[in-house]
Amino acid sequence: MKTEADSGGDSSKGNRRITIYDVARQAGVSPSTVSRTFSRPDRVSISTARMVQKVADSLGYHSDMVDSRSDSQGRGLVAVIVPDLGNQFFTGVIRNIQDECERFHFETLILDTRESITRERRIVDAVAPVVSGIILVSPRMPDAMIRKCAQLRPLVSVNRDVRGVSSISIDSSKGACQAVDYLHSLGCRSLTYLDGPAASWSSGIRWRHILDECDARGMSVKRSLPCAPTFYGGYSFAEKYLANPTGAVIAHNDLMAIGLIVALRRLGCQCPRDVSVIGFDNDIMSMVSSPPLTTIHMSLSALGRGAADLLMQRLSGASLSVAPTVPARLVIRQSTGKAASGS
Amino acid sequence: MKTEADSGGDSSKGNRRITIYDVARQAGVSPSTVSRTFSRPDRVSISTARMVQKVADSLGYHSDMVDSRSDSQGRGLVAVIVPDLGNQFFTGVIRNIQDECERFHFETLILDTRESITRERRIVDAVAPVVSGIILVSPRMPDAMIRKCAQLRPLVSVNRDVRGVSSISIDSSKGACQAVDYLHSLGCRSLTYLDGPAASWSSGIRWRHILDECDARGMSVKRSLPCAPTFYGGYSFAEKYLANPTGAVIAHNDLMAIGLIVALRRLGCQCPRDVSVIGFDNDIMSMVSSPPLTTIHMSLSALGRGAADLLMQRLSGASLSVAPTVPARLVIRQSTGKAASGS
Repeated sequence: MKTEADSGGDSSKGNRRITIYDVARQAGVSPSTVSRTFSRPDRVSISTARMVQKVADSLGYHSDMVDSRSDSQGRGLVAVIVPDLGNQFFTGVIRNIQDECERFHFETLILDTRESITRERRIVDAVAPVVSGIILVSPRMPDAMIRKCAQLRPLVSVNRDVRGVSSISIDSSKGACQAVDYLHSLGCRSLTYLDGPAASWSSGIRWRHILDECDARGMSVKRSLPCAPTFYGGYSFAEKYLANPTGAVIAHNDLMAIGLIVALRRLGCQCPRDVSVIGFDNDIMSMVSSPPLTTIHMSLSALGRGAADLLMQRLSGASLSVAPTVPARLVIRQSTGKAASGS
Repeated sequence: MKTEADSGGDSSKGNRRITIYDVARQAGVSPSTVSRTFSRPDRVSISTARMVQKVADSLGYHSDMVDSRSDSQGRGLVAVIVPDLGNQFFTGVIRNIQDECERFHFETLILDTRESITRERRIVDAVAPVVSGIILVSPRMPDAMIRKCAQLRPLVSVNRDVRGVSSISIDSSKGACQAVDYLHSLGCRSLTYLDGPAASWSSGIRWRHILDECDARGMSVKRSLPCAPTFYGGYSFAEKYLANPTGAVIAHNDLMAIGLIVALRRLGCQCPRDVSVIGFDNDIMSMVSSPPLTTIHMSLSALGRGAADLLMQRLSGASLSVAPTVPARLVIRQSTGKAASGS
């Protein structure tokens, strides 16, 4: 849902630049169709292209107007800052951002903070002078620091809502509900949530949803201490888990879930025979792991493209906006099974 | 092996800047030790730090001299350009480059060409104006085009030797020899090499080594048509493979090997019972896949850090150089087994 302010942002300025959003509104087509008309005309029907071009001409729009900070080749730069390039959730989001930015003639610079708040802030300061806009994916900085960064350049926060900053996030409530409900139907009565990093906003939200769903069904649930959101983060939780096991584990992401399963197997605990394990992300590893992982899927395409669209709107002069949340849903594979009695 | 020219590059200039290499030579320590003395003094013994600082003072070196194109915060930018961020070989190399660049106060910008030569060239042009140097990992452009790019900024080619450009690559001969020898010892007499992209230099080199090793043992060997170096690239080769099967397959990388195994299983062909499969890379997926993958390991640390060191030398005024090749070796897991008779 675009807010009303979208179209009003800078329109009070006398000399506002005409954007593809203006052309789209006037022509009654989507902004993507306008973009394609100018960048990939082979992908638009001839009649649509003619109509869009006519509207664009009448409004005085030129396709090279897209960026105010473009390089000498006429292409602008957008920075995408992520906490962990080794996590395919983030590379998937990046891909979709890149696709969308390319359509608007922007190159995508990617930066990896490796879960360090200090590095995250330093990287924003280092790239801000050379880019048109910044997309922070799952930022770990405090809200106030993110708002400071948003003063340097148009900025979008992905996978975290930050007041006063354009944001797009995932609604994990439906996925969490389906996961807990499914475990309950398998006879599971106790659950561990294997937590992500302390600074992860989305991990906190996921825990809240899981807690609510377990409470509603009278299941006991506990939350682990914060762990690294990596294969080894999950792997190294195995011994702690076995000291105090439950019928099932939901992990903050697929990497952690798979690391936990591999470590438990080495300790003689088989998944799903002894414990059901569910991840979040539905990344490629979840499909090839043994057993294939039951996981909560989110559309990285909706998330990434939505983020890029928010930024493009900001660069076109629109004011602050919040995109609709991206829904999540359960994908059932073989890492979940009938619970032993008393689990 | 560093060439003699290394130390001679710009030294004829009257007013040459003092670099950490000058300090290291004079102090009789490694350049990394000099860097650490100024950036992470807690990691150097007090006596070493004192000695290095004394030498640095006597030569007139200042640690803030590192970069000529640093941003306002005093940090420079280095671009690392890779063909596929979804491939953990590349994210592993990136991590190691980033570690080394950070020690020299550079931030690492990452760009993903997604196997497109056009995009690769366009990206170089787009980032060259804002970075101090460029590292091309497994570039797909023709040699002449890479040399052109090297005229824009100091540039290093990784995983491919390019005449006239600083390069660091992998010596896959030993790994290929061990792999073919191991398959031969298992009774395998025929082999398919599942090829990577047509523009991959390293895939061509790997094929040469495998061909030589098979010839030396009287094994029959064939090379597939070029395939996408991804999970789906391997997955979609399965039907073609079954039309003309061999005792074993060596794939261009782990992702392709795992994709092939998953697709073959769906078609009723079990690995390693019906076919042995070996990958290249030893990435995290090779450890968690089912069965765990036999693969050829290369040190991403040596490759990534070596590449960053080459670039830092170029930025310090050293001339063209070639780093020692990084060796490869076989890691045996469960995707290889005794061959059925006649394979």
